Amino acid sequence: MADAKRIEQDIQALYAISSPCAEGCTQLSYTPAYREGVEYLKKRMAEAGMTVREDNIGTLYGTVDGTNPAAGKIVSGSHLDTVRCAGAFDGAAGIVCALEAARMLRESGQPLESTFEVVATIMEDGARYPGTTGSRFMAGIYGEEELTRLKDDDGIPLIEAMKAYGLSGSLEGVCRRGENAKAFLELHMEQATKLESTGTDIGIVRTINGNAWFKITLRGRTDHPSTPHGVRRDTAFAAFRLLTGLEDHIAREHAGKITVTCGKMALHPDVLNAVPGRAVFTVDFRSPGQERIDAMTEFLHAETARIGQKYDVEYEVEFLKGTPPVENSPNVVDTFERAVKKLGYSSMPMDSGAGHDAMFLRRIWDAGLIFVPSRNGVTHCPEEFTESANLAKGADVLLEAARIIDAEKR
Amino acid sequence: MADAKRIEQDIQALYAISSPCAEGCTQLSYTPAYREGVEYLKKRMAEAGMTVREDNIGTLYGTVDGTNPAAGKIVSGSHLDTVRCAGAFDGAAGIVCALEAARMLRESGQPLESTFEVVATIMEDGARYPGTTGSRFMAGIYGEEELTRLKDDDGIPLIEAMKAYGLSGSLEGVCRRGENAKAFLELHMEQATKLESTGTDIGIVRTINGNAWFKITLRGRTDHPSTPHGVRRDTAFAAFRLLTGLEDHIAREHAGKITVTCGKMALHPDVLNAVPGRAVFTVDFRSPGQERIDAMTEFLHAETARIGQKYDVEYEVEFLKGTPPVENSPNVVDTFERAVKKLGYSSMPMDSGAGHDAMFLRRIWDAGLIFVPSRNGVTHCPEEFTESANLAKGADVLLEAARIIDAEKR
Repeated sequence: MADAKRIEQDIQALYAISSPCAEGCTQLSYTPAYREGVEYLKKRMAEAGMTVREDNIGTLYGTVDGTNPAAGKIVSGSHLDTVRCAGAFDGAAGIVCALEAARMLRESGQPLESTFEVVATIMEDGARYPGTTGSRFMAGIYGEEELTRLKDDDGIPLIEAMKAYGLSGSLEGVCRRGENAKAFLELHMEQATKLESTGTDIGIVRTINGNAWFKITLRGRTDHPSTPHGVRRDTAFAAFRLLTGLEDHIAREHAGKITVTCGKMALHPDVLNAVPGRAVFTVDFRSPGQERIDAMTEFLHAETARIGQKYDVEYEVEFLKGTPPVENSPNVVDTFERAVKKLGYSSMPMDSGAGHDAMFLRRIWDAGLIFVPSRNGVTHCPEEFTESANLAKGADVLLEAARIIDAEKR
Repeated sequence: MADAKRIEQDIQALYAISSPCAEGCTQLSYTPAYREGVEYLKKRMAEAGMTVREDNIGTLYGTVDGTNPAAGKIVSGSHLDTVRCAGAFDGAAGIVCALEAARMLRESGQPLESTFEVVATIMEDGARYPGTTGSRFMAGIYGEEELTRLKDDDGIPLIEAMKAYGLSGSLEGVCRRGENAKAFLELHMEQATKLESTGTDIGIVRTINGNAWFKITLRGRTDHPSTPHGVRRDTAFAAFRLLTGLEDHIAREHAGKITVTCGKMALHPDVLNAVPGRAVFTVDFRSPGQERIDAMTEFLHAETARIGQKYDVEYEVEFLKGTPPVENSPNVVDTFERAVKKLGYSSMPMDSGAGHDAMFLRRIWDAGLIFVPSRNGVTHCPEEFTESANLAKGADVLLEAARIIDAEKR
């Protein structure tokens, strides 16, 4: 069984590495703090007798060789990079539990035929370069073009950040498409409260939510606040009606099946005593069902046209980005269920709201994702918390799943 | 009859003085551009044989003495200061028309018993110091305290701006409470489209709208966009519901009698993919009826509480500022109506949405306000436009009203 104390030590040691944010943990990709996190993990991997390597984009691998070099690999891990002023668990939990699984494997005296590989991915959390960039390189979705195309907030192209970090700038060996890997097993904290509120040990993720992002611009006329409502071209109230209309439509047609979020809203000229002549805001849809995202996208266009006419405002609906939902591999889902059962833990099926590296590694390998409970569902802040005992159960499930996959010689 | 050409020359000359905004006209109070505007008017006043003086806050007066020094004064004018990148008419039109009335008076060979005084007020448009500050000093509502309390966006206290402009810093002679003035007559462009759309020459204002300003803060929880709607504490949708609820309530209970404006909205953390944990926004009510402002204020508090509970967010409704509606003096309204009739022009009664200096000078003298048509109702921008022929009719009405008041020896 996993050692909760060792897991807790690793989590705390990684959390203590933070720069420049004094509150919580900040390890942005390709920064000195990130390097320090990598060096900590390398030391722990080496202590556990693993073979350590870094690839050309800074992905860290630690390997426990199997008894049969032809048997292929089983890969497990998550991301090391964080948002700014993050908590201790988002990303790190998945690496530390995979590392603990590797230690248990070494200590068990019962090696696998397959090679067990622990991975710490980079650029997952989108705080410096866009989210899940590391796993897209690993899956061969990103290539040379992105090295110059992707820039951070300071305008630094990815390739410059990589070189400043000490990498060569080559992508050789980064893409793992075509390798004989039997499965990618990711553990993550839930970022919601289903497991905690039901007292369940493990969430086994069926589907990772798809999303669609829009930027909407309404152009009307800036007016004095005493202008009667009937003759205004008020973009603020048009925006509010449009958004509440989306929420109402979801409640009527798709209750509990899709979410709508408005995270940004800018009114111009942005003064108290002027009817806003321009409103710019965002819409984020999330759902495990692409057909619901498509239906809401269609409704968004129709509703914007209707509101535009009603409030006499011009409108533009710009599609920014969309990622379709991803079904985790059924045989990995099944493996996780058998592992949980064998260990005597409790589990429930669930969907993942957020995107994870498993989404993109799923394109080249079988992949699956499990969740461990998080307190109050809070995430991306120092209050983020998962009990070490929960993490230990997660590490047990990772190793048990690896043993099942290995035994079946898939 | 007024000379539309002279009026147009004055309007264009004042519009040409602008700094630092290259587009339109910017004459902020106590700036070199403002000084240039004052010097232009002083020259025109002197040419017209008027006695010119500036008071201690920079208000400019030009006087045509009456035949009976005991007969008191009739005062007419508006504000010289502008917003940034303003048009040519908001404020300046009222000064230039009063100046034209004074020129006509001098040229007519039929002097008044009363002294006719043209005034160019300062600090009306709120672009540097708060709106209607000049007329509040004139009415004795503001005093020594405001000299240090009021600061511009750069933190410069009013008294420092005044001294840098060349004034002494004393308020002696600024307050005109208790002076024997028979009436204050203000002309302004409409800032709406009622006159233009009905082809009417002059709007005679009954009531200047009151207003009430609020800042509302909602505090919920920042969440991942996949968080189900039922467990969110989403401050964005709570704000949208609250605001559309206000608009709905007005349509049901107070249609056409009060307006609601949301001019500012800030969502935090202001990122596309986060449910906002905090929303801060403003509400502006305007109405000629204080009882409707009171009723909507009460509804705002009740609705915020209801929405707060429904969306599980904490709320704070902060009252920022309120000005009650002002009834213009009935005898001045009556005088304007008789003047328009005598001149053969058309007029309609109306309310003023915006505040004007007449609101505060009404506290110490009889006061009235007329509007001239403006094209498309656009204001506070270079596209602002009123025909010179309309302004000439307005100047005629100002002089005719002054003659009526003078003849009645009020």
